[in-house]
Amino acid sequence: MFSADDYRYMAQAIRLAKNGLFTTHPNPRVGCVLVRDNAVVAEAFHAKAGSPHAEALALAMAGERAKGATAYVTLEPCSHFGRTPPCADALINAGVSRVVAAMTDPNPLVAGRGLEKLKQAGIEVSSGLLESEARALNPGFIKRMEKGLPYVRVKMAMSLDGRTAMQSGESKWITGADARQDVQQWRARSAAIITGIGTVLADDPELTVRIGTDLPQPLRVVLDSQGRMPVTAKMLQSTGPILHVTSSSVTKTEGWPTHCTTLQLNTVENRMDLVSLLTHLAEVYQINEVLVEAGAHLVGAFVEANCVDELLVYMAPTLLGSDARPLMTLPLTQMKDQKRLALDDCRLIGQDMRMTWRFLSE
Amino acid sequence: MFSADDYRYMAQAIRLAKNGLFTTHPNPRVGCVLVRDNAVVAEAFHAKAGSPHAEALALAMAGERAKGATAYVTLEPCSHFGRTPPCADALINAGVSRVVAAMTDPNPLVAGRGLEKLKQAGIEVSSGLLESEARALNPGFIKRMEKGLPYVRVKMAMSLDGRTAMQSGESKWITGADARQDVQQWRARSAAIITGIGTVLADDPELTVRIGTDLPQPLRVVLDSQGRMPVTAKMLQSTGPILHVTSSSVTKTEGWPTHCTTLQLNTVENRMDLVSLLTHLAEVYQINEVLVEAGAHLVGAFVEANCVDELLVYMAPTLLGSDARPLMTLPLTQMKDQKRLALDDCRLIGQDMRMTWRFLSE
Repeated sequence: MFSADDYRYMAQAIRLAKNGLFTTHPNPRVGCVLVRDNAVVAEAFHAKAGSPHAEALALAMAGERAKGATAYVTLEPCSHFGRTPPCADALINAGVSRVVAAMTDPNPLVAGRGLEKLKQAGIEVSSGLLESEARALNPGFIKRMEKGLPYVRVKMAMSLDGRTAMQSGESKWITGADARQDVQQWRARSAAIITGIGTVLADDPELTVRIGTDLPQPLRVVLDSQGRMPVTAKMLQSTGPILHVTSSSVTKTEGWPTHCTTLQLNTVENRMDLVSLLTHLAEVYQINEVLVEAGAHLVGAFVEANCVDELLVYMAPTLLGSDARPLMTLPLTQMKDQKRLALDDCRLIGQDMRMTWRFLSE
Repeated sequence: MFSADDYRYMAQAIRLAKNGLFTTHPNPRVGCVLVRDNAVVAEAFHAKAGSPHAEALALAMAGERAKGATAYVTLEPCSHFGRTPPCADALINAGVSRVVAAMTDPNPLVAGRGLEKLKQAGIEVSSGLLESEARALNPGFIKRMEKGLPYVRVKMAMSLDGRTAMQSGESKWITGADARQDVQQWRARSAAIITGIGTVLADDPELTVRIGTDLPQPLRVVLDSQGRMPVTAKMLQSTGPILHVTSSSVTKTEGWPTHCTTLQLNTVENRMDLVSLLTHLAEVYQINEVLVEAGAHLVGAFVEANCVDELLVYMAPTLLGSDARPLMTLPLTQMKDQKRLALDDCRLIGQDMRMTWRFLSE
């Protein structure tokens, strides 16, 4: 059904889409390649919410050469008016003769409408080419559209024997400088970073993106049920939005910087309701991808609540021993309770091994 | 200094040597390729102690065609009478004109003598081609020659969070069937397998090689300081030699099968002297490679005593939680005490990740 050329051009569109990795949220990363007479006449990617979609950009570049062309798009063209006019209309008006989409719109309420509109206009339409690669571009956007929740990635640094620090808390540094630098790209692609008050009090991190100069800063979310966050925390001094999450019994702290918002979250059995938090992040902040950079307790709570999609583990080539601190606080007693995962990626970052594990649903 | 053809033929000799992986001990794995007029005239590998060396076999196959040929050998040809006549003499007598060795003899007392003998006979001699690949064929033989100790490989199966069983001891199965089958090849290449009485009492394993039909069974070594090994242990019913190691205060058990020998080992600070054990295995049994398949306590003792060369870890894609049993009993308190390693190999075996880590010396 698809030719070798189809694969080649769609792969090119996917590579293009990746240029928007750090900047499109809350929109998806999308690439578009226009091909006529087996030659690329235009190619583009979506860069930023509010700026033109990939299809619109490519059509503008192609001009008259779009007539009779095939459009390869990594996501079904939109059929509704958002901040920009519908791309399906633009493709029809430009006179393209064929549209190949890698995947349909993940929002079940609109999926297929853009392709249907194109078909009604007499355009040859197909979908599903390199679909899994296209889905991998937008795990967060897809999950938010399908489930109303962000995609949650938990980052951890551990030793070969699964330890994160000595019993005393000493941990600098388990992983190498390359691994610590590598974390920056995961922060940059995340619209929110979640941490716990324990990490704030122990490490006083800024949790900012320090690659590039004009990248948007993610929303930093601090879970602090008892309101222990000090006004002097470095995070509060640095730029970028902060969401300070307390339990409902804690009153809002006064005198804080204006870029810090407080959210009072319900507790469930004395623990903060993580599903409510994630729902809030998706609905109110349109967060696609969340990076959790936290300690053993909060990470364990996320895992226990089945709120984690992906574990990003940097494993250092070292043994810290059986008295050292565990990877996460996760009290399981039987093999049947184990949390199963699947490996998505494994590579060396400096001397450390970086593994991407996907949680298998229960 | 070496041509592309030299590399090609030596690589071929190394591949040949691997045919002896399971059978040559206590001898090294050696391959030989004879090349004349840029064509292979004979190739051979050493199969078994007492049977001809690779060079002798290749020369016998080549006959007259060995005259003027180049011999590629993965190890310096021997110059002494052992169970077979010296290969250096055989190469001289056959009239080869050039000998390329991947490495010199690892025994410092004889290293270079074989090559020197060849040189004296007017043969062009060189060494060091693909040396690290050739050394990797024989980590145990090399270590025994250089240090008087076997190469110690510790096999472990663990979860992603570094746990080997639930707190209750439940552990069947953490890793998959493919990983458990993969262990067989490591047993088969090991001349000895070390385990502890704890594992014998808990799992009652046979620790036999169950691939192939005519492979030699490794020496199974059971560390049992207090002499708790029951006569009914499966291991004692199965064929293949057993070394039952007790501390000196325990009297030898009577009525055991004749294939089970007892060794009384000294204790150091109430622990069995592992260095003495390994020295004994090298000197008395000529053991090249040892595989340790034991529980957390014994493995921890080996690591603490800096007796481990390699950690072979099968990591299952699962979390067993923070109450589960640790990888090894290794009480360290400061980052400066950590045991550093380097990655030699990483691959998927079924759904599990197999990693080979080399301990870095202190």
